[in-house]
Amino acid sequence: MVVGLDLGGTKLLGVALDPGHQGSEAVVEGKVATPTGTDEVLEAIAGLVADLRQRAHEATGRDVRAVGLGAPGLVDRAGTFRYGPNLPGVVGVPLAAELGERSGLPVVVDNDATCAAWGEHERGAARGRNHSLVITLGTGIGGGMTVKGEPLRGAYGFAGEPGHMVVDPTGPECPCGRRGCWERYASGTGLGWLAREAVRTGQAPSDTDFVARAGGDLAAVRGEHVVAAARAGDGDAGAVLDTFGDWLGLGVANLVNVLDSEIVVVGGGVSEAADLFLDRARQRVREMALGGERRPRVPLVAAKLGEQAGAVGAALLAALRT
Amino acid sequence: MVVGLDLGGTKLLGVALDPGHQGSEAVVEGKVATPTGTDEVLEAIAGLVADLRQRAHEATGRDVRAVGLGAPGLVDRAGTFRYGPNLPGVVGVPLAAELGERSGLPVVVDNDATCAAWGEHERGAARGRNHSLVITLGTGIGGGMTVKGEPLRGAYGFAGEPGHMVVDPTGPECPCGRRGCWERYASGTGLGWLAREAVRTGQAPSDTDFVARAGGDLAAVRGEHVVAAARAGDGDAGAVLDTFGDWLGLGVANLVNVLDSEIVVVGGGVSEAADLFLDRARQRVREMALGGERRPRVPLVAAKLGEQAGAVGAALLAALRT
Repeated sequence: MVVGLDLGGTKLLGVALDPGHQGSEAVVEGKVATPTGTDEVLEAIAGLVADLRQRAHEATGRDVRAVGLGAPGLVDRAGTFRYGPNLPGVVGVPLAAELGERSGLPVVVDNDATCAAWGEHERGAARGRNHSLVITLGTGIGGGMTVKGEPLRGAYGFAGEPGHMVVDPTGPECPCGRRGCWERYASGTGLGWLAREAVRTGQAPSDTDFVARAGGDLAAVRGEHVVAAARAGDGDAGAVLDTFGDWLGLGVANLVNVLDSEIVVVGGGVSEAADLFLDRARQRVREMALGGERRPRVPLVAAKLGEQAGAVGAALLAALRT
Repeated sequence: MVVGLDLGGTKLLGVALDPGHQGSEAVVEGKVATPTGTDEVLEAIAGLVADLRQRAHEATGRDVRAVGLGAPGLVDRAGTFRYGPNLPGVVGVPLAAELGERSGLPVVVDNDATCAAWGEHERGAARGRNHSLVITLGTGIGGGMTVKGEPLRGAYGFAGEPGHMVVDPTGPECPCGRRGCWERYASGTGLGWLAREAVRTGQAPSDTDFVARAGGDLAAVRGEHVVAAARAGDGDAGAVLDTFGDWLGLGVANLVNVLDSEIVVVGGGVSEAADLFLDRARQRVREMALGGERRPRVPLVAAKLGEQAGAVGAALLAALRT
């Protein structure tokens, strides 16, 4: 058995599974809130590992042999968390070494989206594809790739940050310090921004459905209000989701032009609304991938593993590398 | 011995070399103009192969065992040239099969920039680096990457078209049909455009040195006029080259954020002026790569093999794959 965990800015999610079993089923799973502070985060992770380990043993009679952890930022090949905007205060922490000491098990740490990509590659929508790209749309945009069926880690383990590909140098400011990063447009945060921009530029009236759903406060409009309004049939919200699909397709085409991916999988929380924007994005990718109809069409599909993708992938990476 | 050729829109360049010899020296080399028409191109290539083969035999007493060819566009894994904007009329041509028949030798065909990247990896500026990115700045921007010391070809052999990464969706039109592709700004063509824009927007006077060097005709200003003016100490030309360095750095940072390259090599004709813009581009990459000072600095260096990079790389790819 192996344990996998996905450390997010708000919650820590874990699973225990049998890496030799070809389904995606976790034997046991658990979830806790992410605390503040490096020591507190380490304690929470170690506590969840111990809990999952005990429950997996009760369920199967077998012991856990390794732990995988996905963390939201740059993780080097030694398993040290270098930097991530969503875990403020946690900088330069040797997660693999610290957790290895606390659990007495081999611990593998990698970027959370790299873990999610590996999960989708092994047990989800990219299964059987040697050159896959998985992007996760949440607060930002994460990414993970496989090359020849293996995870692409890059020179230092930092590969897969497509959210910070600048697609408009005069665009809105990004917390990373640049302007016009792709995740300003095509993430959950970006969806809310596009909706607010639509009202500010007069493309949607100030009393449109998605503003009403945010209590009439334009500044409070978020992606979820747009999705809810579109599901209720509102045209203004539908137009915002079309623009969202255009931006998603633009960035995916950029990445396909560089990587020549065989399949692109869209995961993360926003992918639950994939039916509202994925067709539009597919059309843009067809138009914008170099060579157009002279190259094989690249399928753009929704992820299959849902919120467990990162934890499942972390568990399977631990199985692969230990 | 192996023969390598680099098929460009205007010229066809070839070398014969010993793949077991660790220098970059070609034993013999040759160059002919690229003719128009598919049959004519095939004849020119076959003729140059026969010529190099004979001369290599005369020089070394040894025979040529394989041929590599770099072609400017999308080349699939079977060696068929699918599409390239700089070889109009040559579409869907099975180059490897046709040349194999004409020469009686095994023939490997790949994208020209992928070949140049492999040449720089094996014998040039990226030697010994497992995760390298080579970009070639000419009429457009080509690209080639290595992952774990091997060429990254992608799912269908089309990987490495960073020139068509859109970096401003409202930017100038690209012959590929999109707007604001990176090569509109950071190629040789882009350098000329940036100079003309500087005059049109009043950042440089209409009688500035680089316009005078183009015969006083703004529409005739090209990258070479800007480089010549900058070398003569002209400040307007220097400012245009700073902007060029900014755009180069922006795109390189985008690619480093996705690929986590260990080194980035800048080749192609424009790289002969690298001393005029590479420092500026380095500064932008440092500012724009995610994590900034928390990740190792990525060297951004000029290519070493000059105009032979593509032919040398094609020869070495043929040696690798046959």
